[in-house]
Parts: sequence; structure tokens; C-alpha cells
Amino acid sequence: MHIKAIVSYEGTQYGGWQLQKNAPSVQGMLEKVLFSLVGRRVVVHSAGRTDAGVHAKAMPVHFDLETSIPPEKLPYVFNTQLPKDIRMLCAEQKEGFHAQYHAKAKQYVYSIWNSTHASAMFGRYTMHFPYSLDIDKMRAAAAHMVGQHDFSAFAASGAQVKTTVRTVYAVEITKKCDCIRIAVTGNGFLYNMVRIITGTLLCVGTGRIDPAEIPNILASGDRARAGFTAEPQGLVLKEVYYEDLPFMEDPGL
Amino acid sequence: MHIKAIVSYEGTQYGGWQLQKNAPSVQGMLEKVLFSLVGRRVVVHSAGRTDAGVHAKAMPVHFDLETSIPPEKLPYVFNTQLPKDIRMLCAEQKEGFHAQYHAKAKQYVYSIWNSTHASAMFGRYTMHFPYSLDIDKMRAAAAHMVGQHDFSAFAASGAQVKTTVRTVYAVEITKKCDCIRIAVTGNGFLYNMVRIITGTLLCVGTGRIDPAEIPNILASGDRARAGFTAEPQGLVLKEVYYEDLPFMEDPGL
Repeated sequence: MHIKAIVSYEGTQYGGWQLQKNAPSVQGMLEKVLFSLVGRRVVVHSAGRTDAGVHAKAMPVHFDLETSIPPEKLPYVFNTQLPKDIRMLCAEQKEGFHAQYHAKAKQYVYSIWNSTHASAMFGRYTMHFPYSLDIDKMRAAAAHMVGQHDFSAFAASGAQVKTTVRTVYAVEITKKCDCIRIAVTGNGFLYNMVRIITGTLLCVGTGRIDPAEIPNILASGDRARAGFTAEPQGLVLKEVYYEDLPFMEDPGL
Repeated sequence: MHIKAIVSYEGTQYGGWQLQKNAPSVQGMLEKVLFSLVGRRVVVHSAGRTDAGVHAKAMPVHFDLETSIPPEKLPYVFNTQLPKDIRMLCAEQKEGFHAQYHAKAKQYVYSIWNSTHASAMFGRYTMHFPYSLDIDKMRAAAAHMVGQHDFSAFAASGAQVKTTVRTVYAVEITKKCDCIRIAVTGNGFLYNMVRIITGTLLCVGTGRIDPAEIPNILASGDRARAGFTAEPQGLVLKEVYYEDLPFMEDPGL
């Protein structure tokens, strides 16, 4: 039986999504439950990988499982065995579903605690940034990022990808009390791309980078010209889209 | 020099506000910093105590300190020594200020994760309650709690207090996605009062207690007639008021 499931996790305690030797991983925790059910390894495929400390509100996954448990009951089975910072929210039988290859777009949200002192309560989910920020300038810079671009300048080196061209559908910046949120929606993301977009927008907000420079930075393909890589704990994978949606039609081109 | 400071903390790792023998406490952590500054114990007084696992967005405190450090710099000194889940947000010299005795009102917010499965990301700040809730009935019940009442039925036994009469200025219930928040503002609270108010409102929401029963439960003074004590981690001390405010004038009487 081919299962689609949605998993949510707080990434603080994990070395990331992916199975690894020296740290617990979200994939490893899920596969441990499956091992307990069928006595052998069942691979869990996700819509994407998240780095150490990065969270997911809703990460779609798929796996194959032969069991008499009705798929919709699987979250209860998983949640009794999983640690509290990983929850399976729902599951269904969906033959042919591929969590990664069928994904059409993703939304990540980065949260910045923009106050003199860090947040005691939300330090696990925010990057502390104490300097004042010009949100209007950040929005002007963000507008230049929307569209289909070669995002080489906004990618960490080392990852093997066929193309560094991605389409960003929206970069929305909102502020509520001390918390600034940057929501980035795109058809795909290069390694560390959202964290580098965030770091660059913060440099724009403090005046170190001019918003009008963004097209030049994109065109240069030079990672050194973009901003710093924002810390992992501010990043949340919020949603993965599998349907054609209106915002995909005209990505601000 | 008499100092007023505001402290914020995530209570998960602590045995509560108050200094205790067998668990780390928020008071203990703050006094440890003061000890490092002056080489002797300086007592930190708070506006109130919070139980193990309960959080504070903004807890006012006061203490006496002889130091050449300007008061407004104290948060920087404290925050370099405090664990990340405790932050001092601000400090000032304020002679005669008493964090507890001068408090005129407090607001607590209780957060309920009202979804089939618990929240992976917000499990530290919410109580999971999977049953469907009738918010209108909860609001009707909450309205009966507003005003000056003997809240004996809504207090855990054991605490020594002069009077069990308190004034509740407002009980506001809001819902956003899966999260229901109950904000309770009052001139003071008995032991576990907000958690018992929450548990009672949840019983109302599921139909186990009729909203019209609330006045009878209050009048009875019988703890057994109110609802259960909601878990600590959903509770946050949000604000302590030291000024006369309009909502204090006519507490729905």
C-alpha cells in the first residue's frame, strides 16, 4: 500500500530531515516506527530536506507499507511512538504519489525577532536581530527577487543540481509586534536559498545593500555579493503545493 | 539602588518561578547572576509566582543592587549569563517600587491546541485538546465568570490566602486555525485559578457543563463542581498592570 502522509516537526533536536550517522533525524524517527511495524526498513521519502534546526509545519512524505492498519489510523500509531516534537498529522492511501517529484511549489516562512533582546519564549523559532530595519526597503528588494531567475548568488556551494534557475512566486514581509516574518513561495529552492534571501533582506533593511542592487546581485551569480545566511532556527517549511494554483500562472514576470 | 526589571521566560525547564531545592527556578537563575555581580545573595521579588512549566511573556521583578552599572545596561549583563530561555527585557531605577504589592491587575493567556493530533512545533506552549468545542457556549460561560466573585470553586486547595474573592475584568476567547486562546484579566488570581477556569470552559465546550451552571458553581465554592485543572504548559503570564486602566472601572458588574 502506497501511503501519503503529512508530518510536522520542531527541528531543534535533530540533525535535519535526512537520515545520518551522527545525529538523530526526522526521517530516522519515522523509519524507526515503520521498522517496529513490519520488522524491516521502509524508506520514508519527503518533499524535500530540511537542515539541522529547521522546522516543518507540514512536510508531505510517502512510503510503502503492507499492513492491516487502515491508513487514516496510521497517525495514531505513529504518534504513540514518535517523540513529541514530531507528529504525523494525517495519512491516506495514494497510489503513485511522489512527495518530491509531484510538488509544484513550496512556501517557507522565516521569523526574525527584531528587538533589543532575544525572545525567551520563541528563541527556538526565531533569529534574533536587534538592529532597526527599514521594512519598505526590504519589500522593494523582495520585489526584485520575484520571478524566474538564476539564483546562484543565493545558494550555498556544494549542492549538485541540474539547474540553478528557480521561480519565486512571492516574497511577503509582515511585522507583528517584535516579530518580522518573510514568507517565500517558489517552485523550488536551492540549498540555503531562503536563509540567504533572508540574510540579504536584513542587509537591505539595515542599509548595507541597496534594494536596486538585487537585480545586479542576481545577474552576477556571485554568492559573495548576497547577504549572510540567516540562522536555521528561524526557518519553517510551511506548505508544499501539489496542485496548479493561481499564483503560479504569472509569477510577477 | 532599587531596580524594576521585566523578565521573560519559557518555563519548560524550570520547577517554577520560586527558588526551590530540587529543581532549577527562574528566581534562582536571576539571583545567580546577581550573586556573580556582588558576591552575596540579592533576593529577586516578582509580581507573582508561576508553576513548573508555566511561561511569562513579561514578569515584573524588583531587587536592590549596589553597582556602578547603569540600570538600563543591566539586561545586557544578565542576558550574557542567563540561559537562553530566560531574558531580561528592560531595567530601570525605581525607588519604592514593589512588583507584587503595587500590581493592580494581571493578564494570563491560556493556549489550547484544538486538533486531532498535538502540535509538534507548539507542544511546549499549548495543551492538546482533540475534542470539538462549542466556542459560543464557552463565551457564554466565560461571561458569568466576569465580575467580583468568591472563586473558591476555582482554586486548588492548600494555598493560604486572606480572601478568595477576586475580580475578573475579562475572559476573552479567540480561535485562530487550530489554536484557541483564553485571555483572563483580573485583579489577582488564586492558586491554579486560570488553569481551572480553562478546564471548566473546556468542559462547557464539550457539553459536560452547562454555561448556566457557572453562577451555581461559583456560589457553591466547591472545587469538585468546576472543571479539571488544565496542563501548565498552555499558560503564559502576559502582562502585569500597575496603572489604573479603564477596564478596571466597571468589571462587568
